[in-house]
Amino acid sequence: MFRTLLTAAAVSALMVGSAFAQDAATAEALRDKALRDHLAWDLTEELTTTIGPRLVGSPAMEKAKDWGVAKLKALGFTNIKVEQFAKPSWTRGEESAWLMAPYAMNLNPLGLGRTVPTPAGGVEAEVALFATYAEMIAAPEGALKGKIVVITQPMVRAQDGAGYGVAGISRRAGPVEAAKRGAIALLIRSISTSDSSVPHTGVTTHGDDVVTIPAAAIGVPEAEQLQRLAAKGPLRIKLNLQSSVDPKGVAWNISGDIKGSEKPDEVIVIGGHLDSWDVGTGALDDATGVAITTAAAKLIGDLPKHPRRTIRVVMWGSEESGGSSDAYLAANKDSLSRIILAGESDSGADRIYSLKVPAGSLEHPVIKTATRILTPLNIYLDRAPAAHGGVDITGIEGAGVPVINLNQDVSRYFDYHHTADDTLNKVRPGELAQNVAAWASFLYLVADSDIDFRAMKPATAAAAAAH
Amino acid sequence: MFRTLLTAAAVSALMVGSAFAQDAATAEALRDKALRDHLAWDLTEELTTTIGPRLVGSPAMEKAKDWGVAKLKALGFTNIKVEQFAKPSWTRGEESAWLMAPYAMNLNPLGLGRTVPTPAGGVEAEVALFATYAEMIAAPEGALKGKIVVITQPMVRAQDGAGYGVAGISRRAGPVEAAKRGAIALLIRSISTSDSSVPHTGVTTHGDDVVTIPAAAIGVPEAEQLQRLAAKGPLRIKLNLQSSVDPKGVAWNISGDIKGSEKPDEVIVIGGHLDSWDVGTGALDDATGVAITTAAAKLIGDLPKHPRRTIRVVMWGSEESGGSSDAYLAANKDSLSRIILAGESDSGADRIYSLKVPAGSLEHPVIKTATRILTPLNIYLDRAPAAHGGVDITGIEGAGVPVINLNQDVSRYFDYHHTADDTLNKVRPGELAQNVAAWASFLYLVADSDIDFRAMKPATAAAAAAH
Repeated sequence: MFRTLLTAAAVSALMVGSAFAQDAATAEALRDKALRDHLAWDLTEELTTTIGPRLVGSPAMEKAKDWGVAKLKALGFTNIKVEQFAKPSWTRGEESAWLMAPYAMNLNPLGLGRTVPTPAGGVEAEVALFATYAEMIAAPEGALKGKIVVITQPMVRAQDGAGYGVAGISRRAGPVEAAKRGAIALLIRSISTSDSSVPHTGVTTHGDDVVTIPAAAIGVPEAEQLQRLAAKGPLRIKLNLQSSVDPKGVAWNISGDIKGSEKPDEVIVIGGHLDSWDVGTGALDDATGVAITTAAAKLIGDLPKHPRRTIRVVMWGSEESGGSSDAYLAANKDSLSRIILAGESDSGADRIYSLKVPAGSLEHPVIKTATRILTPLNIYLDRAPAAHGGVDITGIEGAGVPVINLNQDVSRYFDYHHTADDTLNKVRPGELAQNVAAWASFLYLVADSDIDFRAMKPATAAAAAAH
Repeated sequence: MFRTLLTAAAVSALMVGSAFAQDAATAEALRDKALRDHLAWDLTEELTTTIGPRLVGSPAMEKAKDWGVAKLKALGFTNIKVEQFAKPSWTRGEESAWLMAPYAMNLNPLGLGRTVPTPAGGVEAEVALFATYAEMIAAPEGALKGKIVVITQPMVRAQDGAGYGVAGISRRAGPVEAAKRGAIALLIRSISTSDSSVPHTGVTTHGDDVVTIPAAAIGVPEAEQLQRLAAKGPLRIKLNLQSSVDPKGVAWNISGDIKGSEKPDEVIVIGGHLDSWDVGTGALDDATGVAITTAAAKLIGDLPKHPRRTIRVVMWGSEESGGSSDAYLAANKDSLSRIILAGESDSGADRIYSLKVPAGSLEHPVIKTATRILTPLNIYLDRAPAAHGGVDITGIEGAGVPVINLNQDVSRYFDYHHTADDTLNKVRPGELAQNVAAWASFLYLVADSDIDFRAMKPATAAAAAAH
């Protein structure tokens, strides 16, 4: 095994010219400078403190847009754009939930994003409690008529966040599916890996013309309490969720460039999203993503000579409620072929542990060099091809833009995300800096190269298996 | 050092007769049985689930009283008593707090226990923010006229809970002291070791005739946010705290005995408190204390022969708001001399790490044997004398009753206590059982002995230093 590695290194060395050796040295220097750089922290602190939560359609989000533009200008980005798009905005109103029988207990709910309201004064009904989403789905249509459905399925803690998709369906599809079965409202155990009473919001998936019901999350201990009580006898719950929607709302994708020195039309798109939920201050989700990518690009912009290709930072305007991705695709459809790579930082600020690159590029000298430079940051090259680069780049990824994944350890992320506890004190400065170091060094290598990810042939299964 | 220990052990062995060797074997068996016993968990689960939070004066607290009596009966305790005492009861009403300037942010407050209400509709004022309690105290009388005071002093995490007393003064004395300086309301950073947004309540200290002001806690991130914002410019806050007091409220201390087989009039008083705050379900504070001591006594009660002295479990009725201690002292003032030892379990359910015994008893064979039996539970004998046996036994301790401390590791306790997160899912069954094992084995040894803690001479300072 050791001999194989030596051989691979020797081959790599032969392929690397002296200009590229210079690039590697620059990338290493960027990496090391980033580890001592405070910009990402300062941006995170400023955005979360001076503006706070940034729900799409809120006055705070408009302030955040202006902040983003001013910040990109001040940091030396050029070609700054504000791309406005229509986005109906949802606003939370008064919310409460009480267990009414067998005794009165405050359930401290948090309405799910885009939930429809209850009638004024709320609804009260008997509870149909399900330990899993699958059990609720197994109920026939009409079987839950007049009930308030409670789903108490927990979420698996996983380094790569795999538990989120599995548990998250209760939130995304639960309201519509419970409505189909006759339920009048839905409460879910927070989609959370914590043991906390702090409820998690997050978007629900429903079209404008689909029948849905009011839906909220409750904290983990409250859900467990209902589960224990339901085993002893019937429960009644009263739920009041007020909210409103402004159909004429707007949002904005903002971008700024570190212009390429030789091939400025070839663009790498990176970024995080400026919007957040209305609880907490959107620190991990996703002030840090904005901060990490902006700080990484700024470090590259400060070099004596910009890399050959352009690096574009996009501060996405509506990730939580959706919309940024389609809007960017629509606004940039004529120049998609010139986006050579895209990536998004949107899983908090804990350390990056792996890199995934587009299929077929594993053996390219740029990737080999990047891997070597990322190794001291404790990042490995995952040989599976990159995919699902981020919610905001789904649109351009679907249209053929290659993506990368710089995978953050999210073991802790789902304790806090979409809650009142997504706040600055959950950000670890050292791990934040490690993110910037990884992005800056990797981006520089790709931006100063000719690597063409679209031209790569995916490795055969046999070749992949040989590793 | 090793030789010294051997010598001490040899001396100890000489002092121990064969009856006492049998006691040691029984205590060891109790310890090991307790580690596999489920009663403490079952009691904790039942009390927190079927009754929930148990604020003094609430219907739930009356249910808890009935539950305690029924439980003591069912578990074979005798001489069951319900000692009623007067206790004005405080009830939380509607509460809200908003940062109004520089921008609107929900501060999610939790009124401190016994806080006076604001006028209907709340109060709004400029903020005077202090990073420490000492800085607030340094303000002259009248200097804070018309202000809402915010104190953001953090709490030190410490295994023995030392940080609680230091930080807790903001909560206990803060309202009266801020009032003296002219403030119209007080917000404190939660007295918490967590990084959570979940606010902590807890009692405030004020006499009926003292001028005080409405006071609430806010979560750690909210307090830190205010501190950062205050460094940038003036803040305004609006606070609405409604509450009411029923001056005719009552509470109850409940007790039951494992009657001594030879000296039933000599009594060891142990227990935890049944009452809790109105948020969470009072799991760690203090369903587990009730459960640990009840389960330990029940294990002893199940022995073929009861120990010589009586073990009395008291389920205290008003720890959080005060009152149990004085009431017990008053009701039992004629029999205090027959209480040979008292102890309370009221610091959660994490593992016990040390034992403190009354001054002068360190070298007694009972204590030496107890230490040997507790060592495999990872508990050491602290050579400092026991003191402050628990809030509910302060009265009898002050009247001369010797006390013990079975010290729980509270590193984690102050993350949750007095919050919505004091719930069953924070209790670790293995550590709960370790508590029962320690109480059961220690209690048995003392109850089956003639040890007279009142007759002990405290070791001289020189003798203590020799160890």
